[in-house]
Amino acid sequence: MTISPLAPSKFPDLPVINGVRFSSGRAGIKCKDRDDVMLVEVADGSSIAGVFTRSSTRSAPVLDCQAKLGADGGRAAIIVNSGNSNAFTGSAGETSVAAICDAVAGALSISASQVFTASTGVIGQPLPHERITSKVGTLVENLRADGLEGAARAIMTTDTFAKGAAAEVQIDGKTVQIAGIAKGSGMIAPDMATMLVYIFTDAKISQPDLQALLGALTDQTFNCITVDSDTSTSDSLMCVATGASGVDVSESPGFTKALRGLMLDLAHQVVRDGEGATKFVEVRVTGAATDADARKVGLSIANSPLVKTAIAGEDPNWGRIVMAVGKSGAHANRDKLTIRFGDILVAENGWVAPGYTEDAGAGYMKAQDIVIAVDLGIAGGMETIWTCDLTHGYVSINADYRS
Amino acid sequence: MTISPLAPSKFPDLPVINGVRFSSGRAGIKCKDRDDVMLVEVADGSSIAGVFTRSSTRSAPVLDCQAKLGADGGRAAIIVNSGNSNAFTGSAGETSVAAICDAVAGALSISASQVFTASTGVIGQPLPHERITSKVGTLVENLRADGLEGAARAIMTTDTFAKGAAAEVQIDGKTVQIAGIAKGSGMIAPDMATMLVYIFTDAKISQPDLQALLGALTDQTFNCITVDSDTSTSDSLMCVATGASGVDVSESPGFTKALRGLMLDLAHQVVRDGEGATKFVEVRVTGAATDADARKVGLSIANSPLVKTAIAGEDPNWGRIVMAVGKSGAHANRDKLTIRFGDILVAENGWVAPGYTEDAGAGYMKAQDIVIAVDLGIAGGMETIWTCDLTHGYVSINADYRS
Repeated sequence: MTISPLAPSKFPDLPVINGVRFSSGRAGIKCKDRDDVMLVEVADGSSIAGVFTRSSTRSAPVLDCQAKLGADGGRAAIIVNSGNSNAFTGSAGETSVAAICDAVAGALSISASQVFTASTGVIGQPLPHERITSKVGTLVENLRADGLEGAARAIMTTDTFAKGAAAEVQIDGKTVQIAGIAKGSGMIAPDMATMLVYIFTDAKISQPDLQALLGALTDQTFNCITVDSDTSTSDSLMCVATGASGVDVSESPGFTKALRGLMLDLAHQVVRDGEGATKFVEVRVTGAATDADARKVGLSIANSPLVKTAIAGEDPNWGRIVMAVGKSGAHANRDKLTIRFGDILVAENGWVAPGYTEDAGAGYMKAQDIVIAVDLGIAGGMETIWTCDLTHGYVSINADYRS
Repeated sequence: MTISPLAPSKFPDLPVINGVRFSSGRAGIKCKDRDDVMLVEVADGSSIAGVFTRSSTRSAPVLDCQAKLGADGGRAAIIVNSGNSNAFTGSAGETSVAAICDAVAGALSISASQVFTASTGVIGQPLPHERITSKVGTLVENLRADGLEGAARAIMTTDTFAKGAAAEVQIDGKTVQIAGIAKGSGMIAPDMATMLVYIFTDAKISQPDLQALLGALTDQTFNCITVDSDTSTSDSLMCVATGASGVDVSESPGFTKALRGLMLDLAHQVVRDGEGATKFVEVRVTGAATDADARKVGLSIANSPLVKTAIAGEDPNWGRIVMAVGKSGAHANRDKLTIRFGDILVAENGWVAPGYTEDAGAGYMKAQDIVIAVDLGIAGGMETIWTCDLTHGYVSINADYRS
């Protein structure tokens, strides 16, 4: 598989987060020649928060995690496999989740209610969970503090690169570390946490506070990206705060900012690995009647097949942006609309801007990172959405791959 | 341009509709070597109804038609050009509409308020309306009762075939004729009338009754198709009832059925000419909580890039249909969901059906016309949506074509 042209130059150095250990291994769920399962051990006293897909056909692991979250602490574990999503697998799906949780609980001497699972891959095929349970012993033996990068590789599906990000915050002279990983490339549309994301920090914060913070930041990060407008049945984002730093961050703007930055970094990496992507596109909407209207316009542009194919063709086809604004359902007035490509003023007052030239627009579209800015000229509502282009690569990947 | 593999074998024979005459000609709006303007003369006493896009960035001709509809009768005219949509062209757009209406009004000795226009093609470029006004005299000279097929050809843009349909109804021993034409291939999503559609009948019906009937039938026909989820700024559907048959159809179920059938035929032809289409797909949703929920599910499936690319690849990937049901926002219960490909039972009770085989599904997907039936098992809500697949052809057409 060719690595996305939008990939970062390398996987970042991730800090050790005291209180969590990781391992990854080869269960052979779908492919025999790559790691496809990761295990995380979480120390006693940690807070675990999660955000999940709102799909009405969400997977058995998602339903199980939602039922378990927010319960009393104690040591915990997270186990994730790629190659099979265990979604739409009827009661067999629940049986598989229970078997995996029991195996991990037994090996780590914890309660099964403290084991969280996730599965990603093909929908509708029974998960051969015995391939996972038979590896749990080895996974537990191999747990190590610096195993997060390996875990990031084990949860990839159509991803062309492993996704990680780190942040460090100084609070009252002490250091708080945050590290996170993500997977995701197709079936990406913002409705709660998108894809699989795991974030670890040694910050000290209660579970309810962490949960509230995670939900708010997800709306500003993962819920602002879209690859193809399709929402996965397995989307899961979990954040573990071990408290090992001893730094209480519940009232810390610095921590919130650092966590948000890390989540946005991971979200952008998912877009940069969008199936078939050759352009990274930021859609900035301002001047809307409300923030919700700005979001409607941003998503309408970012999900428009005609806008996305124009970008793939490096065609500065701003008429299609006008179309996408018009169909969005948001309050808009043709004659108050302003469109810019980066700093280039393209259209205003209901028509093309006097100084705009097709050559200037076409030149801008050759860049790898594109900014489309739309001001509706109505009020102060704003939102930014990130997406990628729609290319022959997307069609090739999805006319063949069984997801 | 290659003709769509889903095209009908030939353009249908259209009946003469007494009370309307047609002509078409070459104004050279964008291309010099094809007809690009059509004119319709409508006899005194006709009823004219119209349904238009709800886009907030709709074109100057659409705004002008909406303002004129429903006024007092008299002779009327419809003039349509391809090659330029006169959308997002500021006050110049209104000037162009006025100039064209004045020219037609002068040539036919009617009021400019009785001239309806439409334009289709590139967005955001000034319409060189003098190329049209200079041809109006010739167009008027060439008006003829059997000119509808030529008109259908003149309004094509990325269409690969001209679209026409006819129907005949016997009412009280008398015959009512209906004939219609349409254009449309991309930027097709159901929100009011989609693309350009013109329907003519010699039935006798008041303007308010015709308008009400047209609105209701549009919801069941053109608003049930989607090619790419993108809604045009120029969508217009107009229906002219000349009354020349002397048959009052205001209470006629037979006429309603015939008109609906003709509108559905034209709507299907638009899907069959969907940009890059190789498969015609009917998505039947039943068992939903409400008809509106069934529509949400149908559109979610029909607009899903992952479902559409799977169909292009002849991949019976029913997991993606589960995904699309889940993301639709409609009330759904995984364990009550039933999915069929044609008559093949694929999934039920929250999992793949016991008798289903991949070979059976893969064999079915090789057909050119595909039926995906989803029963939600909740209540009696239903809707059917028609769409096509998403292919390399769509990306090629839209990464290059400036629409």
